Amino acid sequence: MNTVITISREFGSGGRELGRRLAEKLDVAYYDQEIISEISKHTELSEQYVSQITEKRPYIPFPITVGRSLSAWYNNIDLQTSVQIFSIQKQIIEEMAQKSDCVIVGRCADYILRDYRPIRIFVYGSLKSKIMRCKNNAPEQEHLSDKDLVREINRIDKNRAEYYHFYTDQEWGDKVNYDICVNTTYMSIKDISESFIKLKTK
Amino acid sequence: MNTVITISREFGSGGRELGRRLAEKLDVAYYDQEIISEISKHTELSEQYVSQITEKRPYIPFPITVGRSLSAWYNNIDLQTSVQIFSIQKQIIEEMAQKSDCVIVGRCADYILRDYRPIRIFVYGSLKSKIMRCKNNAPEQEHLSDKDLVREINRIDKNRAEYYHFYTDQEWGDKVNYDICVNTTYMSIKDISESFIKLKTK
Repeated sequence: MNTVITISREFGSGGRELGRRLAEKLDVAYYDQEIISEISKHTELSEQYVSQITEKRPYIPFPITVGRSLSAWYNNIDLQTSVQIFSIQKQIIEEMAQKSDCVIVGRCADYILRDYRPIRIFVYGSLKSKIMRCKNNAPEQEHLSDKDLVREINRIDKNRAEYYHFYTDQEWGDKVNYDICVNTTYMSIKDISESFIKLKTK
Repeated sequence: MNTVITISREFGSGGRELGRRLAEKLDVAYYDQEIISEISKHTELSEQYVSQITEKRPYIPFPITVGRSLSAWYNNIDLQTSVQIFSIQKQIIEEMAQKSDCVIVGRCADYILRDYRPIRIFVYGSLKSKIMRCKNNAPEQEHLSDKDLVREINRIDKNRAEYYHFYTDQEWGDKVNYDICVNTTYMSIKDISESFIKLKTK
């Protein structure tokens, strides 16, 4: 069976960098944006739309009573589309795991591949360290305030947590769902990656 | 500054073995029972008593109203003794960290040494894996049932959590308080220790 490392990560914690470094050092495939591109090819939906839908829990349309009238409330993300995309995503991720050793970032890969027993890593950090990393990695023209960044970090992580919970019925970031949780506040991603190349599951 | 690794661990998760292996591989001092012996020497209290008191939150004596009468309720573990022992323990742990590179197991060392920026490891595992490890490591004459083991694991971990919370005001096992949390359910302690020798804090 191939060695698969899955990376789940808080926004700004450096999870993507860790994944990339691990894949480089181990000389294995790295899948992140590639999953979106593959889904986009399969569905003919734009990468932007797929990207948005795969990080946001779908809202289930249900009738609610407003005053005395019964009205139906629908969110702009359609449940059926989201579930269909998840099913394609599952198939693509399984194919990736079957093809070769690899590192997969995000998209519930830890859960989808649970029977393959991947090394499931969760990357997190203090808010301060995540703000700092976001600022360091920001495009030159982007000048978000700390307040804006905190709002953005919280918004993205809330979406990730809800999306993960919706499809896995597990808590995103709860250590019981991972083999290793690593805090990037006081450790460099480079050092962590050098250490983690030695990990393996039984 | 010396490199200090602190290990907090769920009972039966193999944290002690991980600590011992790390210390051996890194060729550094290993402190676990040694802390108890030192406290015992300083206080002239028996090692058994010290051991018991350093894994159990002290109960604060307080007056409670029973029916219409006011009575005082005291637990057998005296608050003052426990706080005094903690203070000695703190001093001993700080001396150990100042002396040389080391691995320290338990006893709030992660919190006591927070200004030294140790590598703070938390070791955990599934209940099933912990029961299995307890059985494998049990003395030959001990034959506890699974039910008894679950009760024992829960009792010890509850005490550890309460003791830690009492002296640190932090949640025991909450990943924000550690640099690495490692799940020993699907990874061998040997492999984990080989990987972790590379870790360092900034």
